[in-house]
Amino acid sequence: MSAEQPDQDDDRLMGVALDEARAAAEAGEVPVGAVVAVEGRIVARRGNERERTGDPTAHAEVLALRDAAAVVGDRRLRAATLVVTLEPCPMCAGAAWAAQVGRIAFGAHDPRAGATGSLYNLAVDPRLNHTSEVTSGVRAEEAAALLTAFFAARRDG
Amino acid sequence: MSAEQPDQDDDRLMGVALDEARAAAEAGEVPVGAVVAVEGRIVARRGNERERTGDPTAHAEVLALRDAAAVVGDRRLRAATLVVTLEPCPMCAGAAWAAQVGRIAFGAHDPRAGATGSLYNLAVDPRLNHTSEVTSGVRAEEAAALLTAFFAARRDG
Repeated sequence: MSAEQPDQDDDRLMGVALDEARAAAEAGEVPVGAVVAVEGRIVARRGNERERTGDPTAHAEVLALRDAAAVVGDRRLRAATLVVTLEPCPMCAGAAWAAQVGRIAFGAHDPRAGATGSLYNLAVDPRLNHTSEVTSGVRAEEAAALLTAFFAARRDG
Repeated sequence: MSAEQPDQDDDRLMGVALDEARAAAEAGEVPVGAVVAVEGRIVARRGNERERTGDPTAHAEVLALRDAAAVVGDRRLRAATLVVTLEPCPMCAGAAWAAQVGRIAFGAHDPRAGATGSLYNLAVDPRLNHTSEVTSGVRAEEAAALLTAFFAARRDG
């Protein structure tokens, strides 16, 4: 399915990433969720865990990439797509590079820290020894709405 | 001591990072080591563990920052210095940003992937919501020699 209908498959995978983001919000975390898929099959799904763990590196993408490498049994994830609700930050775009992820599909742009198109584009720098395809704007309104609601509630709370 | 003699203290801390890099090499890892220090006291020290763990994110800096946050009990490490033998890659420079590290001191420059001065400088980008002081070239020859010896042995082996 993923070969014939990439857009539709991105939408489906993003639905799972959005579920992870919602679960993160319910746990008091900034709502970001990520999925790693290989040929349409989800091998890892995680939400942001920074507050709960006190781990500064516990962004959804880092956690999902780590899980995916363990599941696949290879730290090189060239056949994998990282699907994430928010544009990856420099750390997470760097982690996708470090894991040699084949493709990144993200939802909302992050003008404050985005590193796959907004402030930087670490995924397509020909000076680096690995580049990834990037698809942006997948179900972006839903991803952005989660973040907006979370920060509005925090301000009002 | 660190207040009066920062250079000397960087040299001392880098000595520990170099020990971690040497231990990594002995374990078959690309020899990079990192230390996190607060007011001259080492709170975390780690070497690269990518091959052993199969974890694409297991660079020395990420591991040391994660440990440091757990030891300090805070994911914000503003009072900390990250000391690392090789210039951080995009993921690791991003992790230092995510952890809000006060200062980064590194040894050898990395023209292929360095992200605190070579290809990028993620530590001092005013668009990001945190910047770190950067000191480069600390015992750089020793750090570079470890890497050169490791890759030469690998080629010959």
